[in-house]
Amino acid sequence: MGSLHTEELDTISVCPQNPLDPEEFRRQGHMIIDFLADYYRDIEKYPVRSQVEPGYLKKLLPESAPYNPEPIETILRDVESVIVPGITHWQSPNYYAYFPSSGSVAGFMGEMLSTGFNVVGFNWMSSPAATELESIVMDWLGKMLKLPKSFLFSGNGGGVLQGTTCEAILCTLTAARDKMLNKMGRDVIGKLVVYGSDQTHCALQKAGQIAGINPKNFRPVSTTKESAFGLTAAALRTAIEADVTAGLIPLFVCATIGTTSSTAVDPIGPICEVAKEYDMWVHVDAAYAGSACICPELRHFIDGVEEADSFSLNAHKWFFTTLDCCCLWVKDPSALVKALSTNPEYLKNKATESKQVVDYKDWQIALSRRFRSMKLWMVLRSYGVANLRDFLRSHVKMAKQFEALLGGDGRFEIVVPRTFAMVCFRLLPKTVLVPGVVANGGAAAAAAAEAGELERVNELNRRFLESMNAEGKVYMTHAVVGGVYMVRFAVGATLTEERHVNFAWNVVLEHAERILGEF
Amino acid sequence: MGSLHTEELDTISVCPQNPLDPEEFRRQGHMIIDFLADYYRDIEKYPVRSQVEPGYLKKLLPESAPYNPEPIETILRDVESVIVPGITHWQSPNYYAYFPSSGSVAGFMGEMLSTGFNVVGFNWMSSPAATELESIVMDWLGKMLKLPKSFLFSGNGGGVLQGTTCEAILCTLTAARDKMLNKMGRDVIGKLVVYGSDQTHCALQKAGQIAGINPKNFRPVSTTKESAFGLTAAALRTAIEADVTAGLIPLFVCATIGTTSSTAVDPIGPICEVAKEYDMWVHVDAAYAGSACICPELRHFIDGVEEADSFSLNAHKWFFTTLDCCCLWVKDPSALVKALSTNPEYLKNKATESKQVVDYKDWQIALSRRFRSMKLWMVLRSYGVANLRDFLRSHVKMAKQFEALLGGDGRFEIVVPRTFAMVCFRLLPKTVLVPGVVANGGAAAAAAAEAGELERVNELNRRFLESMNAEGKVYMTHAVVGGVYMVRFAVGATLTEERHVNFAWNVVLEHAERILGEF
Repeated sequence: MGSLHTEELDTISVCPQNPLDPEEFRRQGHMIIDFLADYYRDIEKYPVRSQVEPGYLKKLLPESAPYNPEPIETILRDVESVIVPGITHWQSPNYYAYFPSSGSVAGFMGEMLSTGFNVVGFNWMSSPAATELESIVMDWLGKMLKLPKSFLFSGNGGGVLQGTTCEAILCTLTAARDKMLNKMGRDVIGKLVVYGSDQTHCALQKAGQIAGINPKNFRPVSTTKESAFGLTAAALRTAIEADVTAGLIPLFVCATIGTTSSTAVDPIGPICEVAKEYDMWVHVDAAYAGSACICPELRHFIDGVEEADSFSLNAHKWFFTTLDCCCLWVKDPSALVKALSTNPEYLKNKATESKQVVDYKDWQIALSRRFRSMKLWMVLRSYGVANLRDFLRSHVKMAKQFEALLGGDGRFEIVVPRTFAMVCFRLLPKTVLVPGVVANGGAAAAAAAEAGELERVNELNRRFLESMNAEGKVYMTHAVVGGVYMVRFAVGATLTEERHVNFAWNVVLEHAERILGEF
Repeated sequence: MGSLHTEELDTISVCPQNPLDPEEFRRQGHMIIDFLADYYRDIEKYPVRSQVEPGYLKKLLPESAPYNPEPIETILRDVESVIVPGITHWQSPNYYAYFPSSGSVAGFMGEMLSTGFNVVGFNWMSSPAATELESIVMDWLGKMLKLPKSFLFSGNGGGVLQGTTCEAILCTLTAARDKMLNKMGRDVIGKLVVYGSDQTHCALQKAGQIAGINPKNFRPVSTTKESAFGLTAAALRTAIEADVTAGLIPLFVCATIGTTSSTAVDPIGPICEVAKEYDMWVHVDAAYAGSACICPELRHFIDGVEEADSFSLNAHKWFFTTLDCCCLWVKDPSALVKALSTNPEYLKNKATESKQVVDYKDWQIALSRRFRSMKLWMVLRSYGVANLRDFLRSHVKMAKQFEALLGGDGRFEIVVPRTFAMVCFRLLPKTVLVPGVVANGGAAAAAAAEAGELERVNELNRRFLESMNAEGKVYMTHAVVGGVYMVRFAVGATLTEERHVNFAWNVVLEHAERILGEF
């Protein structure tokens, strides 16, 4: 045995305490748990939407990192005094903005365990449980959704947990693209066309941009009020035929179950029928509404999914897992693997060579990956299918409750039919300038008057919404469909109960009266 | 005020307890903290590399999710009995595989807080503190690294937290690609060439695949032992010139500080000089070694960074933040934003329109994003610059300690010079068949004999490594450089102390003796 270079070893810096000291971990961990439990208990005392101005934090924090350590007690005081005021409280029961970010006790505990183990599960070998639990829970959830067997591992498809829908769409689009390029030659990349509707989430456009699809070949097909802002097969076919005539190549279509603006539903079956004729890849983006389809009475919204190529939903939106946790199922995992695999020597191992394991690094953009299945597993077990259905149903019921309140008051209009747990409404001005009042002005003048009137009502609703959000008792956001500015009331924050919806209704009434009075 | 549809409201399912009940959160949270504190305390009792066989978990779990809820006590018992055996213990002090995944108390507490707040910080508006804290800590860390001001917000550049280096490279490559396509026309996409070395992380190849770069135009330039497996400017120039002659367009080069196989360092300055001549984008991937450059004595490894376009490091590797936390700085944020922005109506807001805020959604692949800066802020404050330097130095010192032990024993060879906290070594067989023994066989026979001998030594080391890992007292992994199979000993698990390195040395000796005896 060799001698030590002792002169070097003597100078090893001795830190006062290892940064992962178990007892310090325990002490601080209990503090943070109490901090967060108190936060949830008292969350209604904060304005839902943060009231700070741009640049607020720079004024409160030093210009450089501290040279010496600071105790957790000091840091936590700063969290309370400088961070919390800058937070918009997505966990507040009075939060109805965007879509929910539905935390839960089980989801949080799962996240703690995976953060605690802190494994980097790029392949099976690097932590077998991380891979195997993911495959198992993805089959569990697939069965709960009654996905066809072809999407499950037990049917030669399979599921993977991604961070977000943006990543899921980028991965499937890349797989579809490479399949096409391998068939037609790489030179056609500039001719590939990607379809969605004008209601499809911006994730599709962005995925196209990243994957090298010509931005001119991103085709957001127009929707109308008549089809409740869903993408019709006929409109899709018309767009595809025009592109084919122009020498372009239809590649990919994204159908949405529950669009961001209005929770519209694209009909999967008819869309797949058109897409099949052109050998296109169909992805179903059920980011928001997919989880609700575990309820038998809502399952029909994904009828036709058996003909699609891939399907995704965000468990962090409306399935209690905390951000981030996007569930993606594909029928042909080999298409993903062909497009996304790399096989460097330093990751070679017997398990991979045996081909008996899944190496999820080849199903996603990144190599490294967190142990996300832990939180999904804990959510499924802690609540069980029965309670999960009931939780989702209670949100739908609360949305119906709010819808009924609006429906009973003539000053409000429900702009689009409610499908899940979101109500889209607007306030109507006391006097409506109907086209008829523009006497003898002809069609053009009537149209101009109508447009002017629409903008007047839009402006009323802009003020109405900003008035509510600035007060901070509730938080809602807006969307525009068919030119109509509307307020979105998305129920789904975990802490929201019936009494909060009634409270929100009173806030709505109060601000509506004030704004109508001023208008 | 309207009347309620009471028949619907009456049927709202009343769940026994809200899934985010603060007191249940408190109860379970304390349990999990104690579970994890005990896990860290007792972590040495587990085999470092999981010993399970493929498919082990399927045999232990049911085929479907439970219909009824299960108590946390039952689930935690299963975590202990079915999950932990399938985990490779990246947090073990006896873990020296791949690169570290360096958890810490501060990193964990930061992750808990961001998971607890569970905000979705896609733009400033959605939670101002998430955006502003990120900009501030990225400037802090940039200053600690002595990055040029042009990479900081204070100098019109800026930093962003991504999940992984794969994402960081994909985003910068997409920005570089679109800059070039906007100049040269989209038709040239098939001519763009991406350069790295044959030691560059597979993230570059994968980013190229996803971004639509022709796989034939991914150029891994050969490295040699003479340049310690670093990419030389001369070799890069030769490759570029050949491509230009062939009518291709050089686009992007990735220089690595601390390659995965051997922690080799590509010389940034000379590489930038070549790249500049061709108007290429230079990304510096310092995923592993970047954090060490906060120590003044190691800062020289990133000399020349002032000429690069972007720079990234993984704080989750060797900077105590837990997975995932990749820090990316760019000189020209507008290039990222042009390539990655989308601007849907439902996200429009006054703050964005005022152009006084950063909307990080346009700096990354995904729309949704976690509040990652919280953990980086807590690490910086909890330890301070002084301790952080000392932690990293202590890892380097422990690697030197191990290197010294190997160096004093003639049975081992240090294959490449140690640069940071990783030692690459191999075991040598007792008898080496030197080429000279092949009498009168000529050059071809000598070369064949040499290749045969190399493979014999490689096989010896394969067995040696597998013998150690199968026993489970320590975990190391391998790489191959210049045809030589070597064992990588990467110090950096947070709990590793001098005594563990001495323990690992004894394991190495024991297995070396046994394998040499059998060989």
